[in-house]
Amino acid sequence: MNKIDVCLTPELLHLCETENKNVVVIDILRASSSITTALAHGIARIKPVAGLEECRALKKQGFIIAGERDGKKADGFDLGNSPFDYMDRSLAGKTIAMTTTNGTMAISKSKDAAKVIIGSFLNKKAVVDELLRGQNDILLLCAGWKGRFSLEDTLFAGAVVKDLGHDFQVDHDAALAARYLYDGTGSNLPAVVENASHAQRLKGLNIQKDMAFCLTFDKYDVVPVLKGEFLIIKI
Amino acid sequence: MNKIDVCLTPELLHLCETENKNVVVIDILRASSSITTALAHGIARIKPVAGLEECRALKKQGFIIAGERDGKKADGFDLGNSPFDYMDRSLAGKTIAMTTTNGTMAISKSKDAAKVIIGSFLNKKAVVDELLRGQNDILLLCAGWKGRFSLEDTLFAGAVVKDLGHDFQVDHDAALAARYLYDGTGSNLPAVVENASHAQRLKGLNIQKDMAFCLTFDKYDVVPVLKGEFLIIKI
Repeated sequence: MNKIDVCLTPELLHLCETENKNVVVIDILRASSSITTALAHGIARIKPVAGLEECRALKKQGFIIAGERDGKKADGFDLGNSPFDYMDRSLAGKTIAMTTTNGTMAISKSKDAAKVIIGSFLNKKAVVDELLRGQNDILLLCAGWKGRFSLEDTLFAGAVVKDLGHDFQVDHDAALAARYLYDGTGSNLPAVVENASHAQRLKGLNIQKDMAFCLTFDKYDVVPVLKGEFLIIKI
Repeated sequence: MNKIDVCLTPELLHLCETENKNVVVIDILRASSSITTALAHGIARIKPVAGLEECRALKKQGFIIAGERDGKKADGFDLGNSPFDYMDRSLAGKTIAMTTTNGTMAISKSKDAAKVIIGSFLNKKAVVDELLRGQNDILLLCAGWKGRFSLEDTLFAGAVVKDLGHDFQVDHDAALAARYLYDGTGSNLPAVVENASHAQRLKGLNIQKDMAFCLTFDKYDVVPVLKGEFLIIKI
């Protein structure tokens, strides 16, 4: 039986294996929710980029650039990190370069995986179905907040462990804890996440609407995957 | 209001502050349970030591030496890491040098704290009372397993956060998650911990008796604290 494991923050990734695994990158508030929304709304490709400067340089090459630091749209960028930024019809078919505080870094750390998948509540069922089709061990990689543990990312990991617990062997305590955490609090997700540090940070930025949206289950039937340098919809 | 935070493994300690905090080192299976038991049974002092060789050298200086690696008593050592090893009356008044896979390393990483306290289910109430008397922020430091997250350590942290939640501000998601985790599973602690990785490892070593003992609440009314190089009972 293949295994499923959870890495609670990218700071612990050196203790987990990514090679030959299907790695799901999770940054619920908001990178993985925004990437899912963008591709579901017809954006062709997203190039995840680690740094603001690298991203700014891509603007000169014709990219639309999306950038966030500490929850706010970065200076000189076309788009921020709200999923609602990516629903604009004029963006359909376009390529975007994106950098975020935690999510894009987690993607760049996963490049030796068999497959890199972007997971969010918005596409949970699609991601779970994709993982069930796979023949590899799974690592659910929580992007966290500046290296620290994040509640909402771990809750999503727990939801996936719950869905896959009969088909994969739960490996290590982090996966077990994520599952217990989701079992205990999943029925009350908005209230629980509202207490979380990052939700408190975002509240100051007046984006409760984003938070409610990012906690919506199965709105989109798309699976963003990394192909070379770009995130695209798995077909 | 002072704050309470949880560090899920020593690998994340560089992201937490320890300075001017009361740090509780938690290694339920079994270092912090054994240290608590030892001091409660009259052992005078325990010198936590990082390495096996350093510990062996102390034997020549007259120390009784206790050492464990990967759950087993290390070669040439007088005592292992079972709490039952420390109930021997002939040890009363003695000084022990101890090294363990995770626990002693977590202690050595906490040396700039205002106070270092050893916490276990065996002395939970005594530790909580000591923390309530303190004027400092609190960091609950889970020793984990070779840098990785450990379920039983986090459950104990959650139990302490629960007890102190009215008197301290819960800081960061890790403390919140530990609390939710304990709320959801604490009433069924032995069964939950039995599924944990380290419990599975210890099972192979045939020490179920240790596990049941380490999950006993409030057996001892002692608070081990670090004074200079030694762990002693706080008086």
